[in-house]
Amino acid sequence: MKNIALKIAYNGRNFSGYQYQPGLRTVEAHLLDALEFLVGQRTKLYSAGRTDKGVHALGQVANFRSNIKVQTVMIPQVMNCYLPDDVSVIQAKEVPMDFHARYWAKTKHYRYTIYNNRQRNGFFFDRVTHIHHPLDHKAMERALKQVEGAHDFRSFMGRDSSQEETLRGLDRVRVHRQGPFIYLDFYGRSFLKNMVRILVGTAIEVGQGKRSEEGIYEALMAKDRTLAGTTAPAGGLTLMRIYY
Amino acid sequence: MKNIALKIAYNGRNFSGYQYQPGLRTVEAHLLDALEFLVGQRTKLYSAGRTDKGVHALGQVANFRSNIKVQTVMIPQVMNCYLPDDVSVIQAKEVPMDFHARYWAKTKHYRYTIYNNRQRNGFFFDRVTHIHHPLDHKAMERALKQVEGAHDFRSFMGRDSSQEETLRGLDRVRVHRQGPFIYLDFYGRSFLKNMVRILVGTAIEVGQGKRSEEGIYEALMAKDRTLAGTTAPAGGLTLMRIYY
Repeated sequence: MKNIALKIAYNGRNFSGYQYQPGLRTVEAHLLDALEFLVGQRTKLYSAGRTDKGVHALGQVANFRSNIKVQTVMIPQVMNCYLPDDVSVIQAKEVPMDFHARYWAKTKHYRYTIYNNRQRNGFFFDRVTHIHHPLDHKAMERALKQVEGAHDFRSFMGRDSSQEETLRGLDRVRVHRQGPFIYLDFYGRSFLKNMVRILVGTAIEVGQGKRSEEGIYEALMAKDRTLAGTTAPAGGLTLMRIYY
Repeated sequence: MKNIALKIAYNGRNFSGYQYQPGLRTVEAHLLDALEFLVGQRTKLYSAGRTDKGVHALGQVANFRSNIKVQTVMIPQVMNCYLPDDVSVIQAKEVPMDFHARYWAKTKHYRYTIYNNRQRNGFFFDRVTHIHHPLDHKAMERALKQVEGAHDFRSFMGRDSSQEETLRGLDRVRVHRQGPFIYLDFYGRSFLKNMVRILVGTAIEVGQGKRSEEGIYEALMAKDRTLAGTTAPAGGLTLMRIYY
C-alpha cells in the first residue's frame, strides 16, 4: 500500500467548482475518473481545499491510498491522458501513510489578481477581476495588514456557510502592483468560505477611497457580515500553493 | 468625419479566428456588431492582421471612419458593453484620415509561448503550447537568428495559402526562458500564413536536438515546405503589438 500526493493545476472558468456534485462539471469528478482509470477501481481522494466555482489553482493538493504497481513518477502522465485540457496533475509524490492533504496542510497561499485599468482586457478575461477606478494598492495593503493574525473572521464569511468555528489565522497579506495588475497574496492555515474574496472586496473599497483604512478592522471587530464589503468575483482568485 | 484606430485584445481560444465568416464565432463579427451599436449603422472596419483560429491578441489594431459625435475616449467603454468577455477594445485614438491599420503597419510583434515542463499545466492550458522534452532555448535562438532578414520564406508558409509573393522581412527574433516558459518573440512588417508557427515548429526540433541549428537555414534556402518543421499549435501564439 502506498499513499500518493498529487499536485493539481486547473483553470476554474468552466468548472462548477472543485468539489464533486452529481451531474455538474467539477474538477474532483474528473480527477476521480482519471484515478479510476489509473488504479482500475473507484478510489477515494482526499483534497486539501475545495475551491469555489470559477476559482483557479496552480497548486491544489490531494492524496489517495492504493497498492498500484505503476511508478509514482508516471502517475501524472497516465492521469493527464484522461483529464481535459483545463485540469492536470503536475506532480505525484509518495508520502507517509498517515499524510492527509487537508489535515496536514500548514499554510495555504491564495493570490487574487486585479486588472486595474480603464478598459477591461479580453485576453486576461478569465483570470483577473477588472476594476476601472484607479486603486491605491498601498492603502489596500495597509488596511489588510490590520487584520493579519488570529481573529474571529465571521464578518468575512459567505452568508450561506454553515461553519460554526470562525476563528482563523491570517498569517500574512501582501499587496503589490506590476503595471495594471495588482496582486493580493494571502497566507494562512485555513480560510472561511469566501473569506479571501470578501477581504478583497473590502480592500477594493479602501483602494477606491470609499472606506477608510481602519474600516476593514472595524468590520472585523463588528463580527457582522453586512459591515464588510462585497464578495470579489471568483475569476481573480487562484490557489497558488499549499505548504506542508 | 473622423478616422478612429482601435486597439483590441482577445483570447482566441473560443473564436474561429479573427476574420469574419458567416455563421462562425469570429472576433471581427463581434467587433462589427459592437461598432454598429456605437455608430448606429453597419460600418467598415480595416484590421491590421487576421489571426488564425485559436491565436490570441494583446494589441490587434483596426480602424474605421465615421462622423459619430461620441468622444473618442468613450468609444472603448461603449463597444465593450456590447462585446463578450473574451474580446475588448482597450484603446481608441483619432488618427489621420488616410491612416489604414494594415497598410500603415511598420512592424508586428508576435510572441509564441512554450510551457516546457514534464507535465502539462491545466491552469495555463489555453495560452501556451506544452512540450515535455527539455528544450535548448539557446540553440533555438541561434537557429532562428540565421533566418533574420529579408528572405523568400516560402518553406515556412501554410500549404493552403494563396499568397504568391513570399518575400518577407523578419527583422528580429529573440528567445528567452523564464522558469518553465520559453518565449519566442518575432518582429517583422508582415508574415506569411502560419509563418511564425512553422518557424516555431522547426525551432522546437532544433531545441530537441532532432534538427541541427543550420537545418533551419537549409529549410529556408530549399524553398520547400516539406523541409521545414510542423506548424506549432495556435494557442501558444499572441499578436502582442503593432508599431506604426
